[in-house]
Amino acid sequence: MPDIDLPAKLAVSPTGTLAGGNGVYTKHLADMSGVYRDTAAYEAELTERGGDALVYRVESQDYGPHSGALTIGTSTLLPGRVGDEFAVTRGHLHAISDRAELYYCLSGRGVMLLETLDGRSEAFELTPGEAVNVPGEWIHRSVNVGDEPFVTLFTYATDAGQDYQLIADAHGMRSLVVADGAGGWKLRENPDHTGYRRA
Amino acid sequence: MPDIDLPAKLAVSPTGTLAGGNGVYTKHLADMSGVYRDTAAYEAELTERGGDALVYRVESQDYGPHSGALTIGTSTLLPGRVGDEFAVTRGHLHAISDRAELYYCLSGRGVMLLETLDGRSEAFELTPGEAVNVPGEWIHRSVNVGDEPFVTLFTYATDAGQDYQLIADAHGMRSLVVADGAGGWKLRENPDHTGYRRA
Repeated sequence: MPDIDLPAKLAVSPTGTLAGGNGVYTKHLADMSGVYRDTAAYEAELTERGGDALVYRVESQDYGPHSGALTIGTSTLLPGRVGDEFAVTRGHLHAISDRAELYYCLSGRGVMLLETLDGRSEAFELTPGEAVNVPGEWIHRSVNVGDEPFVTLFTYATDAGQDYQLIADAHGMRSLVVADGAGGWKLRENPDHTGYRRA
Repeated sequence: MPDIDLPAKLAVSPTGTLAGGNGVYTKHLADMSGVYRDTAAYEAELTERGGDALVYRVESQDYGPHSGALTIGTSTLLPGRVGDEFAVTRGHLHAISDRAELYYCLSGRGVMLLETLDGRSEAFELTPGEAVNVPGEWIHRSVNVGDEPFVTLFTYATDAGQDYQLIADAHGMRSLVVADGAGGWKLRENPDHTGYRRA
């Protein structure tokens, strides 16, 4: 048996702060190259806002990838658009693909976009108090379709890991979450998507 | 690969309602025989309130115990005391003991009481927005130390299971959470506790 981990108390703020966490990472506009399909709009955003403009921030707490351990964290995705595509996280399939993940919305308005390797697709809008159980085998990405930061509390088995390359190799997810021209969102097929191929 | 589960959207209320769930269970006063150390006070409560008085209610959503699957749920523990012992859940160690669990407080004021087989002990007070990452190997129980229902959102690997008998066999957890006489709580050693012995 490994040494027993000590329980961790966390204070979770609807603004995305996680007191008691031990990890933070941020993604900036320059990190999102290749993520949005409207390259011209992305380049214009880069010029206007600069590559170091924040896109999202993740705070988390874990113990390392012991069997059975959970990573707990907050994801804060700022509002914004690139052309008509709403701000997104990179998205991932878990490297151990049967691992599930919980997302619970703390503030803002977002969409959890979910796709399988074999072509299934789901999109769930999340507002505060709503959650989604993302089962194994589902590629998933957060999308901010509101005007405020979209903040979620998440949990997954630490050993799950993340495969981000799968989406990049497929030239993006199958569906894009875009403005519907009436203040809402809709799905549009990504014309560049080449299908998922697991390495 | 098993059939892929469909993502589940859940609406989590601070009152403990879980829309989108597929399981509910309740524990009533008659189910709590042997849990509180003050037997006379427990018997008096039974006489006064009846065995069918609700102690706690759990709503949950899961897919069955596939590897990697998560159970998500809400636990609503009503306020109350038996003698000077605050209302508690039965408490458990996961049957697969390395499995962790997240508890996130949605409303009320409670304590997560945590003990290891080898004698370590922790007690974390939780108010709304506070959470605890309960690592593997920790026996844990919720305690309501407030005047309102203590409601938490929880998640654990579905295959974890629960061992409730361990606590019963030890004549209760090592520590009791009792009224401190000044409106708060304190820990007191359980004189009946015989140590944990895993079957």
